[in-house]
Amino acid sequence: MIRHVVAWKLRTEDPAERAAQAAKVSADLGALREVVPSIVDLSIGPDVVGGGNWDVALVADFADRAGLDAYQTHPDHQAVAGYIRSVVSDRVAVDFEV
Amino acid sequence: MIRHVVAWKLRTEDPAERAAQAAKVSADLGALREVVPSIVDLSIGPDVVGGGNWDVALVADFADRAGLDAYQTHPDHQAVAGYIRSVVSDRVAVDFEV
Repeated sequence: MIRHVVAWKLRTEDPAERAAQAAKVSADLGALREVVPSIVDLSIGPDVVGGGNWDVALVADFADRAGLDAYQTHPDHQAVAGYIRSVVSDRVAVDFEV
Repeated sequence: MIRHVVAWKLRTEDPAERAAQAAKVSADLGALREVVPSIVDLSIGPDVVGGGNWDVALVADFADRAGLDAYQTHPDHQAVAGYIRSVVSDRVAVDFEV
């Protein structure tokens, strides 16, 4: 199984805006559970510790690389990714086997 | 429950050295499952996709913030963290509720 891990740093410096954007990213990507068949499991949420932490992280499991690719190219994921690109300043991903 | 997500970028440019370091980070942090009581679940591994991805990611679950803090301050974690700091160029963390 492939565990897809992504972290985002939001561009805004305004705490209220950051919280709203983090919640929207979490809700929109979380909704993909019902839409993208290749998702085995998906958890996402805004950071709750602060300090040097970034703002949102996602952990999603796929049976194999094809499942991850189907998720990445799925039109509903592409739509959410468009919004995310508009509000983030940085993104990091790692995909490892579990 | 708190899901602790960390990604690391290794400093070395040498692929063989990067693979060896990623394997050691994964093994050393993975071994903490047996040592740190507050770990509910822990998965870690080297990236298998490449491209713009970073090199290693960890996903660890704790019942609460106190469990995460106990992990962070545990002497065996501190020992591994020393090695990790010596080989990474960057680290990103997000802690979210699941």
